[in-house]
Amino acid sequence: MIRLKFIIALWLSFTAISSVTGEDGYALWLRYHKIENKTIRKKYASQIKSLVILNKGEVANTAAKELSKGLSSMLDTKVESQMSLGKGSGKIIVGTVENAAITQAINKNKTGEIKNEGYAIFSLDKNIYIAATDEKGLLYGAFHFLRTVHSGADISKLNLLENPKLKVRILNHWDNMDRTIERGYAGFSIFNWHQLPDYIDPRYEDYARANASIGINATVVTNVNANYLVFRPDYMDKFAALADIFRPYGIKLYLTARFSSPIELGGLKTADPLDPAVQQWWNEKTKEIYKRIPDFGGFLVKANSEGQPGPQEYNRTHADGANMLADAVAPFGGIVMWRAFVYSNEEPVDRAKQAYNEFVPLDGKFRKNVLVQVKNGPIDFQPREPIHPLFGAMPKTPVMMEFQITKEYLGQGTHLVGLSKMYEEVLKADTYVKGKGSLVAKVIDGSLDNQELTGMAGVANIGNERNWTSNLFAQADWYAFGRLAWDPYMESKTIFQEWAGLTFDNAEVQKTAILFLENSHEWCVKYMTPLGLHHIMAANHHYGPGPWVSRMSRADWTSVYYHKADSVAVGFDRSVTGTNALEQYSPEFAAQYASADKTDLKFLLWFHHVPWNQKLSTGKTLWEEMCEEYNRGVQGVSSMVTDWNKLKGKVDEERFQQVAMHLKIQEDEAKWWRDACLSYFKTFSRQAIPAHLPQPEHDLKYYQDLNYPYSPGIRPRW
Amino acid sequence: MIRLKFIIALWLSFTAISSVTGEDGYALWLRYHKIENKTIRKKYASQIKSLVILNKGEVANTAAKELSKGLSSMLDTKVESQMSLGKGSGKIIVGTVENAAITQAINKNKTGEIKNEGYAIFSLDKNIYIAATDEKGLLYGAFHFLRTVHSGADISKLNLLENPKLKVRILNHWDNMDRTIERGYAGFSIFNWHQLPDYIDPRYEDYARANASIGINATVVTNVNANYLVFRPDYMDKFAALADIFRPYGIKLYLTARFSSPIELGGLKTADPLDPAVQQWWNEKTKEIYKRIPDFGGFLVKANSEGQPGPQEYNRTHADGANMLADAVAPFGGIVMWRAFVYSNEEPVDRAKQAYNEFVPLDGKFRKNVLVQVKNGPIDFQPREPIHPLFGAMPKTPVMMEFQITKEYLGQGTHLVGLSKMYEEVLKADTYVKGKGSLVAKVIDGSLDNQELTGMAGVANIGNERNWTSNLFAQADWYAFGRLAWDPYMESKTIFQEWAGLTFDNAEVQKTAILFLENSHEWCVKYMTPLGLHHIMAANHHYGPGPWVSRMSRADWTSVYYHKADSVAVGFDRSVTGTNALEQYSPEFAAQYASADKTDLKFLLWFHHVPWNQKLSTGKTLWEEMCEEYNRGVQGVSSMVTDWNKLKGKVDEERFQQVAMHLKIQEDEAKWWRDACLSYFKTFSRQAIPAHLPQPEHDLKYYQDLNYPYSPGIRPRW
Repeated sequence: MIRLKFIIALWLSFTAISSVTGEDGYALWLRYHKIENKTIRKKYASQIKSLVILNKGEVANTAAKELSKGLSSMLDTKVESQMSLGKGSGKIIVGTVENAAITQAINKNKTGEIKNEGYAIFSLDKNIYIAATDEKGLLYGAFHFLRTVHSGADISKLNLLENPKLKVRILNHWDNMDRTIERGYAGFSIFNWHQLPDYIDPRYEDYARANASIGINATVVTNVNANYLVFRPDYMDKFAALADIFRPYGIKLYLTARFSSPIELGGLKTADPLDPAVQQWWNEKTKEIYKRIPDFGGFLVKANSEGQPGPQEYNRTHADGANMLADAVAPFGGIVMWRAFVYSNEEPVDRAKQAYNEFVPLDGKFRKNVLVQVKNGPIDFQPREPIHPLFGAMPKTPVMMEFQITKEYLGQGTHLVGLSKMYEEVLKADTYVKGKGSLVAKVIDGSLDNQELTGMAGVANIGNERNWTSNLFAQADWYAFGRLAWDPYMESKTIFQEWAGLTFDNAEVQKTAILFLENSHEWCVKYMTPLGLHHIMAANHHYGPGPWVSRMSRADWTSVYYHKADSVAVGFDRSVTGTNALEQYSPEFAAQYASADKTDLKFLLWFHHVPWNQKLSTGKTLWEEMCEEYNRGVQGVSSMVTDWNKLKGKVDEERFQQVAMHLKIQEDEAKWWRDACLSYFKTFSRQAIPAHLPQPEHDLKYYQDLNYPYSPGIRPRW
Repeated sequence: MIRLKFIIALWLSFTAISSVTGEDGYALWLRYHKIENKTIRKKYASQIKSLVILNKGEVANTAAKELSKGLSSMLDTKVESQMSLGKGSGKIIVGTVENAAITQAINKNKTGEIKNEGYAIFSLDKNIYIAATDEKGLLYGAFHFLRTVHSGADISKLNLLENPKLKVRILNHWDNMDRTIERGYAGFSIFNWHQLPDYIDPRYEDYARANASIGINATVVTNVNANYLVFRPDYMDKFAALADIFRPYGIKLYLTARFSSPIELGGLKTADPLDPAVQQWWNEKTKEIYKRIPDFGGFLVKANSEGQPGPQEYNRTHADGANMLADAVAPFGGIVMWRAFVYSNEEPVDRAKQAYNEFVPLDGKFRKNVLVQVKNGPIDFQPREPIHPLFGAMPKTPVMMEFQITKEYLGQGTHLVGLSKMYEEVLKADTYVKGKGSLVAKVIDGSLDNQELTGMAGVANIGNERNWTSNLFAQADWYAFGRLAWDPYMESKTIFQEWAGLTFDNAEVQKTAILFLENSHEWCVKYMTPLGLHHIMAANHHYGPGPWVSRMSRADWTSVYYHKADSVAVGFDRSVTGTNALEQYSPEFAAQYASADKTDLKFLLWFHHVPWNQKLSTGKTLWEEMCEEYNRGVQGVSSMVTDWNKLKGKVDEERFQQVAMHLKIQEDEAKWWRDACLSYFKTFSRQAIPAHLPQPEHDLKYYQDLNYPYSPGIRPRW
């Protein structure tokens, strides 16, 4: 409490003023502050005298508004957009190839092929062109140009071409109709369903704008654990109102489809996808949606998983279910995203193997407008997982990535854990399915198997807290997701530089922020689940450690199912001597993990059951290394606390305090994780925690008795 | 939808800029904009050259910060506070009577008695004094002075003395531990229990500041449908962190006490208030709280009501229960607020009579530090109710008022309904218990029965929407509650002028806002429950009309229980020929409503069962008058829509749109109320709606079939 009071005292000394005028994080990475360096600002002002928008559509209009607003603010001079080209230089000329002036400039500049939604930015004859094939490209180009200006870079010799590598760059909101969010840790849903469609919260547009600025072009606004009310006319009107707000930002709206809706809402006796009446119901319902939302994107479906209804109830396959919906949306250009995150009803020997077993036999059986949406790893968004075996295993099917941006298993609303490094690790992992270099990114972007339809989904971390994401640095995860969905080959480092540069003004703060984003994921893995441990969180809400969780309605929801600790060893044997989950991967991939002694330590206990006294490559025994790893994780967090506190006065006080308070929580909780997990595993290893390391403050029972019935992100229990 | 699209189009034209820079309502009535009139501003600047704060406590420090901030902003010149008096004129001198300079000035000025928390503001020798007995008085005086400056009034001859008429001026938050709010319509709880005590949302301080600015000095942050977790050590730490934030703003924290906590948390077998172990448990628990929160205010209790546990389970009385808790907090100066909103377990003939029957026999049996908290009317926060019969009926017991600020029954998050007029109607109602002039306000302020302990509670309308209250005008209800808790004799008109003046800059907008606040309550009564109708809302969530509600687990939760419509008549006979609820009032009060023909039409159907064809004083039959009244309510709302739309451009666009969109919803819903209720009552009156009035768009079944399972403000049903 002493530390807290100190923080509060500091707080009180400034909030009287800053609470109204300070930066509360709402502006995200779109702060557009005046460029402080006068030389640079003046130079820009001389290079940007006017702004010409040659297109008239609503998306081009958004690009014009954004450029005008951003440039006016950064250059501290009014930059208004005009429609006519006129003569002279010092212009930003924005237009699609439908305009002769643009085509001529492209030809003269020898710009390469600008594809759908892509753009080129180039300097020519003392003007700067933002050129695209369609208006969405103009919008993305506008945001790119604004980033460039913000960075202070030279804009006299610009020449770049950017085409998105993925088609569907989409957020998944697990937002319920009562505004609770499943696995939401930043307050409640920004979508006020009750007051829609008649009350339009300004936040809806700010949300669309933020997404557009990082290339996100789609969103699913309802939970995958879906509600049939989605299809009631009054709710469809609500969605239409949102779609109207999103459209000028180039964002398509999608909905989740509860498979049993024809029964619950339609009054049918079945939801069998091969039943003509069921098909007819979906066809009609789809028409009703498109009548309201002409550019409706399509459906996202979770079926036959965790209690959700699905085609298997009628002895049909996932393909049968997906194809029925795909046929309904196909006439309108819609698509279906069918999730591969499935549980069989019977408890499996190894849950990691289920999705592969159910989906690989269906390869080639899906309609062309179906994407199979696969989580990055085979379990469930753990701090670290090996790649999902489905990547590369369904060459005849478009497979899209599902990342979790919300930190269900990674510190939730308070921990600073940069996820971009984790995304990068997955995207750059090699499946070896077509030999070395068969990266997951190549599966996702369609290049490996020549797929046209591609996509990446991110489970949103957005709520109605003022700064959108609770932890300020979680904004970087949203940002990174958007950038990687645009280009899955992008380096995290580049993303961090962009985000830190846009979010903070001071160079030292930027540098520290990048350091945190580079390292914090690894530290989190270490203080939660080092050496390949996984799924040892507390039950249900997944807040805090729970390696002792053993009594749940199914074994594969418990922790002991996953770590399999006993007096001799710990870890899940997924090698040939165990469940042989490795057989689902390519031989080259599997070979890396076939034996414990050759397995990268970060996946050791994921693939192997390893004796506590096994000597590892580090020279320590497994037990010793586990103790060290947990402690390294805590040390990493402590270093962030120290490093951040050095920045006081170099960042606005409100955001400084936000981050400082959350880092303190993270440090306390990292110790909690370490002490609780080691106290527990010690009962199996029957060895002391090495004396040079910090010892737990409490006994095991203390940790086991802690309970948090109102942890956020779960459906409330009444 | 056409109208909506029009609004959206307007919206898009400005939000790109205003979404960041516009007024979103977060600043409430504390906007402190620069005074535009240069003459006035310059004059003030010449009169306010410096600011002297003679006290050093944390509350005085808050007053200093607030004055410095507000004056600097309004006068557009830095006004910093200093501690030393110095010489010369043009000073604002702020201090308590402990300072000789203050006492001398008070004597010279012949200021009257400044009581606890009161203040005097006066001009003397070309300085302005803000003088008080304690630091809270300084803070309230500071806010008063800032209001005066904001209004542009002459400050050269100030001479005023303000003492609060009530001691406990308190908000009641019905906020649950999962951040849902029972009867909350402005988002979710601002209190992020999960991240407390370590993460301090800046909003907590802004909340305290807003309350202090209108004289509120206390708050209960947990729901009266209480949770025993309140008393778990980790939760007590969370409350302590909030109390630390609130204290410098003169706000005491209170908690709700779940009566069965000794069983649920303490492991006892009983919660019998006469059991020594139970008493011991509460005593110890209370000590634990005061250890953390030395100025803890005490407990608010809902017992033996709507399923909540209470002393009657052990055949003890409300007094037994209250006294046990009162004894626990008495050594620390704490109090207990015991709610009189009770249901007996048996279904009563008339629910309106229950509280009186249970509490009057207990008069004189409560400890001195117990307040009995009584809702304004005998049913439950209806759009209009006669006063509660308990006012004036317990002369030996301090009785405090409970108003609802959140609009459970008055349009919830979207309708513009100024509640101040309703509060005023109640406070100025005459109980006649000690002859004419025995106003409810006199019961409440203790003057009628010579009570020392006095208070007023308001069930908060605050949530985490950015503008705090969803509907912008609902801020005025929070404001009015604070002002009336300070002075229950205050005229609504004065309150409206203050609020409108602080909230809007343009005189025409202010005038229109006052017009709305003056009339909207009456309009709401007319379009929802005219002529004394009551409790005919939809079940559970109370959103929209539900006069047909007839099947609930108890009859007194249904609508038909209250309106008693049949083919001959409608209304609840509470006269001597009926339940004789009138006998609970003084004879003079009762006489006003004894016969239907003399009863004020606004309470006609509250007290009488009146034939549809009865001719009223208006010359119309009851049925005709009902039809007219419903329509007048709609017309009132339509006039607001028209009047507000004239103000476009005269108020910032963001707040203009907020209000415009909500008014449109209100107009649609007022029609819904009218058409649904008249369609229903028509089946009893068996008469047509007069032809000159608008006819319902749909048949009765349509209205009855409407359902809104996710209406906000109720516990979610899973």
